[in-house]
Parts: sequence; structure tokens; C-alpha cells
Amino acid sequence: MTKWFEGSGPEEDVVVSTRIRIARNLEGYRFPHRMSIEESEKLTQEVLDAMKNLSDKSNYKFIRIRDLNPIERISYMEKHLISPGLVQKVNMGSFLLRDDEVITVMINEEDHLRIQVLFPGLNFEEGWEYSNEMDSFLEDHLNFAFHEEFGYLTACPTNVGTGLRASAMVHIPSLAMSGHMGYLIQGLNKIGLTIRGLYGEGTEALGNLYQISNQTTLGEKEEKIIEKLKNVIIQVINKERDMRESLFNNQRYQLENMVFRSLGILKYARLISSKEAMSHLSNVRLGMEVGIIKDIKFSDITELMIEIQPASIQEKFNMELDNERIDVERANIIRERLKHIE
Amino acid sequence: MTKWFEGSGPEEDVVVSTRIRIARNLEGYRFPHRMSIEESEKLTQEVLDAMKNLSDKSNYKFIRIRDLNPIERISYMEKHLISPGLVQKVNMGSFLLRDDEVITVMINEEDHLRIQVLFPGLNFEEGWEYSNEMDSFLEDHLNFAFHEEFGYLTACPTNVGTGLRASAMVHIPSLAMSGHMGYLIQGLNKIGLTIRGLYGEGTEALGNLYQISNQTTLGEKEEKIIEKLKNVIIQVINKERDMRESLFNNQRYQLENMVFRSLGILKYARLISSKEAMSHLSNVRLGMEVGIIKDIKFSDITELMIEIQPASIQEKFNMELDNERIDVERANIIRERLKHIE
Repeated sequence: MTKWFEGSGPEEDVVVSTRIRIARNLEGYRFPHRMSIEESEKLTQEVLDAMKNLSDKSNYKFIRIRDLNPIERISYMEKHLISPGLVQKVNMGSFLLRDDEVITVMINEEDHLRIQVLFPGLNFEEGWEYSNEMDSFLEDHLNFAFHEEFGYLTACPTNVGTGLRASAMVHIPSLAMSGHMGYLIQGLNKIGLTIRGLYGEGTEALGNLYQISNQTTLGEKEEKIIEKLKNVIIQVINKERDMRESLFNNQRYQLENMVFRSLGILKYARLISSKEAMSHLSNVRLGMEVGIIKDIKFSDITELMIEIQPASIQEKFNMELDNERIDVERANIIRERLKHIE
Repeated sequence: MTKWFEGSGPEEDVVVSTRIRIARNLEGYRFPHRMSIEESEKLTQEVLDAMKNLSDKSNYKFIRIRDLNPIERISYMEKHLISPGLVQKVNMGSFLLRDDEVITVMINEEDHLRIQVLFPGLNFEEGWEYSNEMDSFLEDHLNFAFHEEFGYLTACPTNVGTGLRASAMVHIPSLAMSGHMGYLIQGLNKIGLTIRGLYGEGTEALGNLYQISNQTTLGEKEEKIIEKLKNVIIQVINKERDMRESLFNNQRYQLENMVFRSLGILKYARLISSKEAMSHLSNVRLGMEVGIIKDIKFSDITELMIEIQPASIQEKFNMELDNERIDVERANIIRERLKHIE
């Protein structure tokens, strides 16, 4: 089975991935931040019992955060399979992960349940279908906290209603480079959307990767929220493509210089930090996007961007490594992966 | 015939080239800064008449600065064949250049005559032999201004006596990198030596290349001045080699990272300034010096360092180019020259 980051999807020159996540809580339990460990165990067991009824249940594995070592925990996060919030829930947190890594059900993150579906490229349709299906299945077997007027209840009021957050991870180097990010952020906020860093709220944008998502969850139907978001993403895609074309036509030498220097550094560095590598990989991806770098797939860059994160490197060696060693191994991984590109 | 920068010489891992220059003036003429154009013409003719007696005179070409276009003038300077001072002397300056570019006789630079001999590597012996021979020949046919007590008279008092300046151009990246330059400059000044940039007095040190030369020309015999300088250069060579070994043994990863990143940038950049290129070429040369970069000769780097200077690039195209075009062509030249290095 192909993992999400190994596949390709629509509009993949701009949209790296599409994510749908649905927040749900169970009646009769306090929210996770107020819960005792015993209560969380009981809830977890109830979810596992429900999951036994799932037709493809054998494709899911169940993992408790406390059973993972710190490197493994972060490594799941680096793959975007679990959230930074769940990593913190060492005592109560757990998750169900489908083998193809498309669906995760997180237990006792900020809410009792968070269903996450991840697809490569722009694919809200399948994202919504898969997450909606899992939501319906769980609702059939669990007693969700629901309020006639407000809709689904959540730990944080910003998620009340649909509990839905839809997002697309976009690679927008040309918009970022030409100083358009300020306008974009303002414009998105005005229409109830938000733009965030690589690992969600409060995290940094690395490698010109941004997550654009809906901010409001209340007062509109899920399909409407997704449609509105999708329309905006398409505008961002078109704007980014325009800017790329303009860069290519008006600053060809500067663009080639930037792209190829980054390739040269990635192909020759013996030590490289995650932050620097992300920035050069973003430039190489831009080179692919404008057609001056060939013989490599977008998914190879996405995979490499995950592989070179600190925990993923340490997981490969199954041990804690010091920072210099991580920087050395990161450079080795990148050189090996890019050796065929000229 | 091999040009000086195409050949190899002793201790070439540190010493790029050795230069001897002798300043001489003719009786009965004012110094160049006070001279009329007519006077300078008369002097030039007298020197050319003297040169007719030279046994290998057919190997010399005579070039007037005013007959060169601005690009050609600077290009001779970039090859170190004439001095920045002579380039300024558009109306009176001229020079005789031997075909192998080892010997230049500059006319009406700061002094009436400046004999320059240039050899690759550390080679004061041949440098002194060639320059002394030319000096003796010219003295036989011209009336040199000489004072019983002071020796040869020169336009600037710092050259009075022997009129000799001996220098070695050294590549000392490890000394520079480890913060030893301050001590080195102080130490050299204390013993009457001086250290300067790439094109002599008042010029910048690019690519970790420095010229070490004698400061005093009075009160000691030529052989003594040269011997003293040579002994100090040997100490600098040994110190630089020690520092390289220490870098290699103690900071292997950092060293390899620096060297290979520079190689990567040089092999991939599409635009590069002269200053940046010199700095990366210096790192690549350091890589050769410590044995981690192979399949390239020191003289290739020396040649490349000359070829990528602005006037040399424009001379190749036989036209003035704008700065961006120069940076593009520089990057092209470097990529082509380094394409076989991995």
C-alpha cells in the first residue's frame, strides 16, 4: 500500500496534501484536559470495542503514546500522522492508524476523538468521503456529545458545530518570495480562513509550506465549508502559478541560480540542518514546478522532507544521535536521494 | 611556452607564485610623476634602443598602455603581468613582456623602469637569477641613477637602495580561518616584512591569497634580503601545513562540509560574483591541499582565479559586458572547468 506522501494527486505542483479532521467527544466523559487516567482508559476501551465492528478492522493498528519511545512519537508527528498535541498526551493518548496511513483516529488528544484523513494533492472529495464514513461508523457505535442548537460539542469552542477542520498544505515559494504573504494572510482571515506553519497551529512555515484551513466550524454545513475552502485554494494555486511564470519569464537567471545553487548545496553538503535543508528542498521543488529540474517526482521531495526530520533520522538508526551526527546523516540521506539529478 | 600560472613549482600547496621586482631610474630624467609626455617618450625610446641589444629580443613584445583598451589593460593586471600603478599611466606607461610572461619590464610606472619576474611556486632562486640578469643587461646599456651612499635612487624613498621587492603569493586559508592573521601581520612587520592583498599594496586579500614581501630595500645586500624573506616564507608554509593537518584531524566533518559545499556551489551556480567565486575556489584549493579533492591541479585553480576576473571575462568576448552578464559567464566558465570533479 502506498503511504500518502509516496503518492501523487491533483494540482500537486502546488498542493502537497489535503487533510480533513473531525473532532468528536463522547457523552458521559470529561474532556481530556480534565480527565483522570482511569477515565481515559475506559474511554479508550470503549472506542476499541466500537472499532471491532469495522469491516476492514484488520488494516488498523492501535498504538499508545506511552508504548512509543520519544523518537518514535515525534517521528509519527513528522509524518503528519498524529498531531503535536497527541505527542504531549503520554499517559492517555493513543491512536488507530490504517496501514496505508491515510486514516488516523486519535484518542484523547484535545478532544476524545479526532478522525484525520490525509491525501496527496488537492483531494477534498476523497478526504471528506473517507472521514465522513469513519465518523458515521463511529457514531453508530458510540454516543457522541451533541447539542441541538450548537451541534457537536468540543473541548475548545472554536471546534464546536461540525468539529470539522479541512486544510490543504500548499507549496507557495513564489508568493512568499515576492512578498505576497502579508496580503494572503489578511485576505484569508477576512473570509474566515487561516494559514499556518508546517505542523499546524503555532508552528513555523518551513520550506515555503503552509497549511490553509477553515477557522469557523459553526453555522455552515460541512460540504459548504469544504467547497468554500477549495475555491480559495484554487485561487491560491492560480496566483502561485502566475507568479512562477512571471519569475520564469522575468528573472530567469536569478531563478535558475537560486534553484541550482540549492541543488548544488544539497548534493555536496556534508552537514546540514533541517531548516536549511527544507529551504533548499523548497527551491529544488520550485525548480521542478517551473520545469528546470527534471527526473524527480514531487512525492520524492515530500518524502525526503519527512525523512530528514530529526526523529525520522534517529528512528532509522533506532537510537538517539547527537546534533552533529543528525546533520551528517541528513546530508548523507539527501546526497544519496539526489545523486541522479543534474 | 607555459605561462607562469599554468606551471607548477616547489611548495605549490602553499606558495602560488614568487615575484621579484627591481625599481630603476635613469639619470637626466625627472621621475614619472613629474615628467612631461615628451620626456617620457624620449625615455621610452632610449629603453627600446637598449633592448635591441638583448640576445632573445625577439621573444619580447612592446605594448603601450594607450594602445590597449580599458578591458585589455585591466586584464594584464589581473594576470599579475603589470601593476595597478602602470594601468593608471595611460599617456606614458608601456611595458615589454616576454612571450612566456615570466619577465615584464614596465616603463614609467612609479619609477622609470620596473623589472618583474614571476615564477610558479616558491622559486626565489630563478626569480633572482632572471631579474638580476635583466637588470645587468639594462645597466650595461642605460645610465641608472645611483648614489654612492644610498644606492639606486627611486621615486619613493621606500625603494631606495637595492630597489628590490621580493614577494611570494601564499594561499593560507587555515591560518586565516583560525584567526592567526593578526599575529602573522604583526610578526612580519616586526622583522621588516609586510603582507598585502592580491594585487599588492592597498588591495584586498581575496580567496585567502596574500603577498608577503620585504619592506626595507636599504642597507642589506639583495641575496640577504631574499634569503631572510625565504626563511620566513618557509616558516609560514610549515605553520599553514600544521594548521591544515589539525583542521583535518580535529574538524574533519566541518572541513569536508565547507570544501564540498563550495564545490557544489561552483558546480551549480548560474550567477556568481568574483569575490564569492574566489572564496569558494579557495575552499576547493584547501580541499586539494588536504587531499579530499582530487583530479585537478593547483595550476588549474590559479588559472581559473585569473580567468574569472571581470576584465579577463570581457576580453574573452572582446566587448564590454554588463555586470549580470559577467556573473553569468563567470558561472559558465567555472562550471565547465569543474565539471569532471566530484
